[in-house]
Amino acid sequence: MPTPIDAIKEKGRLLRILSLKATTDAGSGHPSSCLSAADLMSVIFFHEMQYNPKDPHNPANDRFVLSKGHAAPLLWAAYAEAGIIDEKDVLTLRRLDSVLEGHPTPRMRWVDVATGSLGQGLSVGLGNAFAAKLDGLPFNTYVLLGDGECAEGSVWEAAALAGYYKASNLYAVVDVNGLGQSQRTMDQFDVNRFADKFRAFGWFAQTVDGHDYGAILHAFDLFRSDGGTRPRALLAKTLKGKGVSLIENREGWHGKAVPKQDLPKALSELEKPLGPNEFVPRPRAGFSIPSFDGKLDIAVTRKAGETSATREAYGDALVKIAEKDPRVVALDGDTKNSTFSEKLLKAQPERFFEMFIAEQNMVGAATGLAARGKIPFVSTFAAFLTRAYDQIRMAGVSQANVKFCGSHAGVSIGEDGPSQMGLEDLAMFRAIPGSVILYPSDAVSAERVVVEAARHRGICYIRTTRPKTAILYSNDEQFPIGGSKILRRSPNDRATVVAAGITIHEALKAALHLEAEGIAIRILDAYSVKPLDAQGILRAAQETGGRIIVVEDHYAQGGLGDAVLEVVGNQAKVVKLAVREIPRSGPPEALTEKYGISSSHIVAAAKSF
Amino acid sequence: MPTPIDAIKEKGRLLRILSLKATTDAGSGHPSSCLSAADLMSVIFFHEMQYNPKDPHNPANDRFVLSKGHAAPLLWAAYAEAGIIDEKDVLTLRRLDSVLEGHPTPRMRWVDVATGSLGQGLSVGLGNAFAAKLDGLPFNTYVLLGDGECAEGSVWEAAALAGYYKASNLYAVVDVNGLGQSQRTMDQFDVNRFADKFRAFGWFAQTVDGHDYGAILHAFDLFRSDGGTRPRALLAKTLKGKGVSLIENREGWHGKAVPKQDLPKALSELEKPLGPNEFVPRPRAGFSIPSFDGKLDIAVTRKAGETSATREAYGDALVKIAEKDPRVVALDGDTKNSTFSEKLLKAQPERFFEMFIAEQNMVGAATGLAARGKIPFVSTFAAFLTRAYDQIRMAGVSQANVKFCGSHAGVSIGEDGPSQMGLEDLAMFRAIPGSVILYPSDAVSAERVVVEAARHRGICYIRTTRPKTAILYSNDEQFPIGGSKILRRSPNDRATVVAAGITIHEALKAALHLEAEGIAIRILDAYSVKPLDAQGILRAAQETGGRIIVVEDHYAQGGLGDAVLEVVGNQAKVVKLAVREIPRSGPPEALTEKYGISSSHIVAAAKSF
Repeated sequence: MPTPIDAIKEKGRLLRILSLKATTDAGSGHPSSCLSAADLMSVIFFHEMQYNPKDPHNPANDRFVLSKGHAAPLLWAAYAEAGIIDEKDVLTLRRLDSVLEGHPTPRMRWVDVATGSLGQGLSVGLGNAFAAKLDGLPFNTYVLLGDGECAEGSVWEAAALAGYYKASNLYAVVDVNGLGQSQRTMDQFDVNRFADKFRAFGWFAQTVDGHDYGAILHAFDLFRSDGGTRPRALLAKTLKGKGVSLIENREGWHGKAVPKQDLPKALSELEKPLGPNEFVPRPRAGFSIPSFDGKLDIAVTRKAGETSATREAYGDALVKIAEKDPRVVALDGDTKNSTFSEKLLKAQPERFFEMFIAEQNMVGAATGLAARGKIPFVSTFAAFLTRAYDQIRMAGVSQANVKFCGSHAGVSIGEDGPSQMGLEDLAMFRAIPGSVILYPSDAVSAERVVVEAARHRGICYIRTTRPKTAILYSNDEQFPIGGSKILRRSPNDRATVVAAGITIHEALKAALHLEAEGIAIRILDAYSVKPLDAQGILRAAQETGGRIIVVEDHYAQGGLGDAVLEVVGNQAKVVKLAVREIPRSGPPEALTEKYGISSSHIVAAAKSF
Repeated sequence: MPTPIDAIKEKGRLLRILSLKATTDAGSGHPSSCLSAADLMSVIFFHEMQYNPKDPHNPANDRFVLSKGHAAPLLWAAYAEAGIIDEKDVLTLRRLDSVLEGHPTPRMRWVDVATGSLGQGLSVGLGNAFAAKLDGLPFNTYVLLGDGECAEGSVWEAAALAGYYKASNLYAVVDVNGLGQSQRTMDQFDVNRFADKFRAFGWFAQTVDGHDYGAILHAFDLFRSDGGTRPRALLAKTLKGKGVSLIENREGWHGKAVPKQDLPKALSELEKPLGPNEFVPRPRAGFSIPSFDGKLDIAVTRKAGETSATREAYGDALVKIAEKDPRVVALDGDTKNSTFSEKLLKAQPERFFEMFIAEQNMVGAATGLAARGKIPFVSTFAAFLTRAYDQIRMAGVSQANVKFCGSHAGVSIGEDGPSQMGLEDLAMFRAIPGSVILYPSDAVSAERVVVEAARHRGICYIRTTRPKTAILYSNDEQFPIGGSKILRRSPNDRATVVAAGITIHEALKAALHLEAEGIAIRILDAYSVKPLDAQGILRAAQETGGRIIVVEDHYAQGGLGDAVLEVVGNQAKVVKLAVREIPRSGPPEALTEKYGISSSHIVAAAKSF
């Protein structure tokens, strides 16, 4: 027996009351944005979704993503009304010791993915939808969006791809309240224009009065009759602050709590019960998702003397780990023949997602896949990961288990020029708390760090290089996170060169050149850029006269050089070689030379000590 | 007399030949992407656009943006066929000493804005279109897009806003060749689906065979008859590699030059002239744009004892500089009542652009405005500028004169939680070559740095704070780029605290606390985070026992701390106080305390020496 319609209406009233109380109590928050969506939310939570309120991790639970994250109090209220948390918990909103934050984060265990940077939720929902299809699970994903956030292009990236992949297990519910933070929205109450947009992107779209329970329920019934070839969008015309005359459809009330003295009057407008206060959950049972309990390891079989690109080794390793760990999947933005993620497509097509040229949605969907127990590897040119920095940042806030691979790092890509060169990617990923950054210099280390990334729970970034490079390590060498390798040492070393990736090869050339002049240098491979092997670097510095040369194919700010400076402090003299201007098109060797990171510059730096 | 139709066809043939020769000569590049667009390009350059080939800076020239930047050889060929450069110049493509790079950059003086990171050109074109309307100029802007890049959400951000603002002086020409880099595109040859999308976003859209000159010319005639209420999109079905059987409509030829041995055969298929080789330019004369020759300065009139937020002072200063310099405009992403850019909207509505919640397009459009002689100030929450990092990176490659203001920096915003806190913005902007970063700590310095940013040519980032803070400086204090201020000093200072913005106030509190215990510290306001006042910091360090405490409301990576470490090297001992984990919601003071950047932590660090 489903929850009666009157009970769903009553839940809508209770959601409003709790949203108002919690925000007034906190003294801040977005009650008007909660009230516009309360009726939609009530139908989604108490009629549409099938889930077990006692088990947030049930793999067959329908999933909910609050893309308009500023309506967090409404979400907390819904969990209270579903019996998942206490009403009084909701009144801890925004306190330092509460998991009910101002915008949702996974500190609250029913939240999969943090939201609050607008326009990201539909991508996350699409990732959920992919996971459901991959695992043959019956769950649907419901994403509640604001109308204002539909100005974000990432929404249309997700919409296009959901249409392309016919993700009929994905629902977008847009709360069209016509009011943004600072003024009326672009399309105001024009739900038909929204519907036209979704239709043009391949969706089954319906418009509805978002406060009319009969109409909303009917629309969901119609969705179910559509037959599974299209994702589903409900464009609901609503009023911000609906139900409270003080704030209803009024400008100037975005992100403002109702003042304490006005709360009784506001609540008095909501005091009449609309039905019984009950909810009948409809959990699904008997489903599971693939897991992996073994210790992930692979065989590396490089031949001495071969040259291979680390980007190609990345693809080789991806295939090997995917064979063992069923959770591994890959996503790429139409660069799979350059990043070599296409190797996984060829080996296991169903585990590869072509995301086309839309990096924001790619990262958001990966976060959604990770939330459903997958280990997604996201690849494109390192430069183009900048396109998704906000999504990467939010994956960080979500503490998501997503792996990134940026290929074509640095000026060493050559003639394609600066727009294609990843020169700020290390700075970008270093500033994600808890992130791991691995930067292999040969095919052996490249394969090994892919395994390390898969084993580690959390955000990992792997940086690969375009040109082919020599094999430096034996096949059984291990590259643990936080380690480093000494590639060259002698008792007479005058300085330590700290390098990674392509610059390791420049350092080795420099060492040979200096050796001919009777100067010995140590070479340290900082393949683990974060966490950096502080002890190893300090030890090398001490043994080489307190002199360090850091050389990196990255801008001088935020990369390996800055990381080394942080661990070294005043315990060594550091010379930093890095790219310091916008580079040009040209041959790779000419560019490393021109921009100061080639062997000749390392030689000069060593001699300058 | 316009250029004859046969001559336009002939130009199309010559564009193909030159694109092929240049890429084969360079040994790399994207000839197949040039050939699909050659006919469209010929119509645009030799029939549609009105420009003076002798004057790239003529304010009434129609503008062209090659959004599909990998077709750069086609652009260079068009400039050659327009008589702007020599044919033999085109054959310097991709050489280190050539301005004809692999993807367009403004090193070539006819290029306004660098392209090559896909999906950004339409925003730039929209910025051009805004500038035309603002200055009452008759020029149109033509943006040539690839179909693959239309997967980028930024295209739809631009499309939505162009529709909203009825930018009928903006043309989008989409080269629908159906082939991406690694496979068929999402919508393949379905030009009608593309047209539906553009129509849903408010455009006048037409479909056409992109190799049929009659049809293309007719479509442009129809555009002109539309009456100026809608932007215009031409969806052209084309074949990648059109005209050369070796590569025409074949997968596997993206980004590959025709091999030297195959070039004669390829060229032989194009050897038949199609008409006379002539071009009749149609320049416009007699137009100008606003300029400003004075020295920009403002009066600051803060009262001692007042408290004001730096974000509000930003808005005040914006109004003051806009009164004097007619080039100043502002753009905001529906946060204008939080960043206080709304002050300019109120003062001079026509100089303010509401860009809604679409940060990528906002930055791209600002780059387009800057290219047309404006000084755009772009504001939103610092956290949300991460959304546009790729556009900011490309503004860097373009060496664009764009000013950014990120408000709500750091944990000091309080209860809204981590999704709203800008904690990686300094890392992001430091890694833009040539960028300037200014971080005021009070309303006086905030107003002054806005003037500095407007005076400086290039990318500037201003970081503002949410809470109100005390006035620290007298109204006539100046804050030049690259400077610093000593806010507290004594001969007995035991350490120097380097701080900026909100942490200056924590440092001042700490100093009072320490003073009571008989410990003196120096306080240095590093308001110019980049370039940093290296000399000032080193001098302070020397005078305070070689001890530095850096404290910043930013993650520990890539921000002020890293910047100080770089200039200090081994000449001082540096303790870095910064945010080192994902923060939570809570009151501002509780958060600065919990995350280690409050006065108590500065006190502890000072005592630890």
